[in-house]
Amino acid sequence: MKIAHAGHAELRVKDFEASKRFFTETMGLFISYEDNERAYLRAWQDFEHHSLILTKGDTSALVHLGWRVEDPESLDQFAQHFDKLSIPYTWTEAGAERGQGRGLRFSTIGGVPMELYWEMEMYRTKDSEWVSVLPSFPQKFPTVGIAPRRFDHFNVMSNDVQREQEWLTDVLGIKHRYYVEGANGERRGSWLSVTNLSHDIAVMRNYSGSGARLHHHGYFVDSSDELIRAATMIVEHGGKLEWGPGMHGTSGAIFLYFFEPSGHRIEVWTRGMLIFPPDWKPIRWDHATEALGFDTFGSKAPETYLNYGTEVVSATGAPASAQTARQ
Amino acid sequence: MKIAHAGHAELRVKDFEASKRFFTETMGLFISYEDNERAYLRAWQDFEHHSLILTKGDTSALVHLGWRVEDPESLDQFAQHFDKLSIPYTWTEAGAERGQGRGLRFSTIGGVPMELYWEMEMYRTKDSEWVSVLPSFPQKFPTVGIAPRRFDHFNVMSNDVQREQEWLTDVLGIKHRYYVEGANGERRGSWLSVTNLSHDIAVMRNYSGSGARLHHHGYFVDSSDELIRAATMIVEHGGKLEWGPGMHGTSGAIFLYFFEPSGHRIEVWTRGMLIFPPDWKPIRWDHATEALGFDTFGSKAPETYLNYGTEVVSATGAPASAQTARQ
Amino acid sequence: MKIAHAGHAELRVKDFEASKRFFTETMGLFISYEDNERAYLRAWQDFEHHSLILTKGDTSALVHLGWRVEDPESLDQFAQHFDKLSIPYTWTEAGAERGQGRGLRFSTIGGVPMELYWEMEMYRTKDSEWVSVLPSFPQKFPTVGIAPRRFDHFNVMSNDVQREQEWLTDVLGIKHRYYVEGANGERRGSWLSVTNLSHDIAVMRNYSGSGARLHHHGYFVDSSDELIRAATMIVEHGGKLEWGPGMHGTSGAIFLYFFEPSGHRIEVWTRGMLIFPPDWKPIRWDHATEALGFDTFGSKAPETYLNYGTEVVSATGAPASAQTARQ
Amino acid sequence: MKIAHAGHAELRVKDFEASKRFFTETMGLFISYEDNERAYLRAWQDFEHHSLILTKGDTSALVHLGWRVEDPESLDQFAQHFDKLSIPYTWTEAGAERGQGRGLRFSTIGGVPMELYWEMEMYRTKDSEWVSVLPSFPQKFPTVGIAPRRFDHFNVMSNDVQREQEWLTDVLGIKHRYYVEGANGERRGSWLSVTNLSHDIAVMRNYSGSGARLHHHGYFVDSSDELIRAATMIVEHGGKLEWGPGMHGTSGAIFLYFFEPSGHRIEVWTRGMLIFPPDWKPIRWDHATEALGFDTFGSKAPETYLNYGTEVVSATGAPASAQTARQ
Repeated sequence: MKIAHAGHAELRVKDFEASKRFFTETMGLFISYEDNERAYLRAWQDFEHHSLILTKGDTSALVHLGWRVEDPESLDQFAQHFDKLSIPYTWTEAGAERGQGRGLRFSTIGGVPMELYWEMEMYRTKDSEWVSVLPSFPQKFPTVGIAPRRFDHFNVMSNDVQREQEWLTDVLGIKHRYYVEGANGERRGSWLSVTNLSHDIAVMRNYSGSGARLHHHGYFVDSSDELIRAATMIVEHGGKLEWGPGMHGTSGAIFLYFFEPSGHRIEVWTRGMLIFPPDWKPIRWDHATEALGFDTFGSKAPETYLNYGTEVVSATGAPASAQTARQ
Repeated sequence: MKIAHAGHAELRVKDFEASKRFFTETMGLFISYEDNERAYLRAWQDFEHHSLILTKGDTSALVHLGWRVEDPESLDQFAQHFDKLSIPYTWTEAGAERGQGRGLRFSTIGGVPMELYWEMEMYRTKDSEWVSVLPSFPQKFPTVGIAPRRFDHFNVMSNDVQREQEWLTDVLGIKHRYYVEGANGERRGSWLSVTNLSHDIAVMRNYSGSGARLHHHGYFVDSSDELIRAATMIVEHGGKLEWGPGMHGTSGAIFLYFFEPSGHRIEVWTRGMLIFPPDWKPIRWDHATEALGFDTFGSKAPETYLNYGTEVVSATGAPASAQTARQ
Repeated sequence: MKIAHAGHAELRVKDFEASKRFFTETMGLFISYEDNERAYLRAWQDFEHHSLILTKGDTSALVHLGWRVEDPESLDQFAQHFDKLSIPYTWTEAGAERGQGRGLRFSTIGGVPMELYWEMEMYRTKDSEWVSVLPSFPQKFPTVGIAPRRFDHFNVMSNDVQREQEWLTDVLGIKHRYYVEGANGERRGSWLSVTNLSHDIAVMRNYSGSGARLHHHGYFVDSSDELIRAATMIVEHGGKLEWGPGMHGTSGAIFLYFFEPSGHRIEVWTRGMLIFPPDWKPIRWDHATEALGFDTFGSKAPETYLNYGTEVVSATGAPASAQTARQ
Repeated sequence: MKIAHAGHAELRVKDFEASKRFFTETMGLFISYEDNERAYLRAWQDFEHHSLILTKGDTSALVHLGWRVEDPESLDQFAQHFDKLSIPYTWTEAGAERGQGRGLRFSTIGGVPMELYWEMEMYRTKDSEWVSVLPSFPQKFPTVGIAPRRFDHFNVMSNDVQREQEWLTDVLGIKHRYYVEGANGERRGSWLSVTNLSHDIAVMRNYSGSGARLHHHGYFVDSSDELIRAATMIVEHGGKLEWGPGMHGTSGAIFLYFFEPSGHRIEVWTRGMLIFPPDWKPIRWDHATEALGFDTFGSKAPETYLNYGTEVVSATGAPASAQTARQ
């Protein structure tokens, strides 16, 4: 029973058309499927059918974060595991989410809506104009927009970072990689992963105290140079730059944060470390080094960065038709 | 009487639609004006109305290379200078070339068709969606294609490089910057400029002996990283990569050569030196270092690179309506 | 019983001083320990004590490739596994290799000398001038040489690629990621990994037929821009550039190959894909696409690249004092 | 009578050894000559003997900014020009400044100490280990530190920007390129050049009102990627990062500011525009766009950036032995 990797986020967006336009024309993602209610998107080298779902709605919110499990058995094993721990969950039917088999939906202890799945369509373009000359890749190298290489990670906010991190580690088996402590020793942020990425998910303190929030959905670009180009594109083409370029000392990654038209925060980043040691000890960043962890180059995190995230819906908030209640 | 800088090339193209599509969608240039016969294009930061004209035709050829002069007087002064030297020329009327005043057309001693002009429209987008948030720039930073920053230089082939270089220096006042000599001391290539660029125009030996040819039209990108992305775009999106990425030791620039659909060779390059000393002595590259000059990283120039260039039309080959014969 | 990741290569070098100088001054690696016979080196962000050992010798050869196992139990489990399969092995004592616990040494079916280990010192500089301001990192960001971020992968040659790949997959559990087939269907190369890297080890055909060889030891740099700088450093400062910059279509990585003074081939590369799907199917590159797999940008692999690799010593060729024979 | 280009700054430094170490080991400049009192430095591709002079002193101050003139005659012509305008000046003897002929020293109307010179030694390394394999370059490509390609520009502070700019344009012939106006229409900054660089010198308002100051001495790096590496080097290796990476909207350049150990502000930058039109009209940035001009990516200039600059000595403050008073 194991999680293999982070897969996708479903984001409800209050301005469906503007968000769709931004993610395709400026962000440079590709639509693998869309209907009147949803658009499924992926970065050019994402191997799965989607790494982002935009769902039309009255408000903007995180609907769920999707994780693929390591093998077919893991899905039911996690359900049994949740039964034992009295963690409520529901199932979505195969196909309810385009390209995906059935999904096990639940919320973390802090209220972040999540989904585990095994079956997922591996994307290969069917448009002959977009077949890559290189068999390894699901489509051609792109020519439009920021065009990140791949989805990278989730980042959520919580009132109690340590509790959330311990739950993710103990219940889901996501390893703790590094963390930041405030002056009084309280946890400010924790970064976790099951893969060799420095983090598949981060949990950062919600300084506003409003509970679970999506902080951002993160994509990877190939170089600082691409990231600088991305910043210029955002300023000129309809995004709202929030912070960066800067360097998170914790991971060594160069970052850029911005808001898409419906208000979700997006990150593109590059560089940074991969983690290989199987007996990795979480790295402690104390208050004395916290500022370098935020931005090694010396800028301060904007207030919005510390206080603002997108609302989350409960894990049972998905359309009823797509769910089978556990009992 | 002085030339200020290289301005644009007019290229006759046998596949007008395919070339236009390539230059806008893959190369990432912008059309400032077009009609059924011509498309005027520029890089996003080119300040002039155009740095490239595509003209519909049965064959692909260089029609002219345009140079802006330093002041209004220089135009007539050059005509008088040509009179004295018995160099034939014609005038094109103001407006015959979109955005440009009258042009003084002539051929170099080796037969390269050229044009001098003074009046030229400085480009500012009239499309409100494309007005940059930055007043310094003629339009927004782009999101499509290779999107070089600016036009950089011309490169032509000649049976007699030294004679051509000396003519360009003596008659037009374009300074000699560096040159390559073969084993027997004959000139293989010469690079010249009036600006601080390492060269505004290069003359390379036509090993096929077929005389004046356009070797390539060159654009500048901001980094090696962009150039690597450009190479991938060319491979995937309808250009034909010829050579690179490599490094010309002579200028220190990183290069990439490819053919657009009508057969003209295009270069994008980056890095390289600027030249500031007013008493610059041309740098000699002898046969022992020639290979490092071609590609410091060790690749060999393809045969096409040494032998193939686009035909040139005579400087009086422009449409008669656009010309006023000198006598 | 599982391998966690590739760790280091021990290279015997015929010019110890020249190699040491090259790897520190031009390559930009750091010495974590050295004596008269050996130098232990690592990239600035390598977390382990070393990713490269240079051992003084009369000839240049690969002594062993080291792999860390996933947990303490795996080491003895692999030994028992080898017993069952009648694969000969020896043990090296803890400390025989600086910073490392005991090592299980064996050769692959094709003759590549390998070592498994569990205990390894995690590097932290003891030099106060080199302590990073960032607690996540084992030392400061470097200022000298190419300075790759981290060790990336091994690459070996074999007369029978398919047999070697199947052995690595079946016996060691290293997953097959992608492969290249020649015109007649024979295997030209296979790339394998246990981590999310596209490959931890590659096996390429030895066209000279001379059997097991080290093809290269590979490090990762952060961008194409760094790789271009690396190429210039190699040309100017005592390495011998063999091939690149180019792009391996198979992985999408930008590559550069060069020889260090004792004749071992080193690669630095960047970009490229990470692999996350747990049910990844090896990607087949057939003869029609093979050239794009070698270099997407169109250059041909040099003859040396196809035929030359460094000799290997048998896995029992390590100094006797450091070994405990199995029986 | 014309200035050719900006050449070098002489900076008096209160911690000569620390500054020398920083500029060679971290900044990656090269010493072309040094004695107990002075160190002459240049970037690896600077063609002149020096672009920076460090002079030992009790305080840190700008001693002079050196400009090369276009031809030998210009030097005396400028002296006569100054005579006519009653601008005081002195001459330094040939050789008083290493590698340079006699210098014409004067102060701008705002008090910035300057020097014009014609004769200057073109640098070629005499160390055989440092001779480049590429004849175009004065030395090998470097392996240490930030290693900018070349000196780029000066930046000075003034209580009255407009007066200073008009003086530089009217008296020295340095063209006005772009400027920023405050809310009330007063001039906040002006950028000027005689070359194709966007500016050879900038004048920015001294918000502290303390008069002429050196704001910074600027070098060019080849890419955003190098600039990000530079920022990390500064943080880890003894510089003090002040601001950046960010983007000056005015020039489109990516910037990074930091202080060397004696307190002078240094900039490295990349990208940005070159200016070719001979009839360039200065671009106005009004108060509404000022913030984007400072940093397009949205950060605010630190207070130090607006108020702090290094003191200047009067143009007659050079050692008496090196001067010949005009009368």
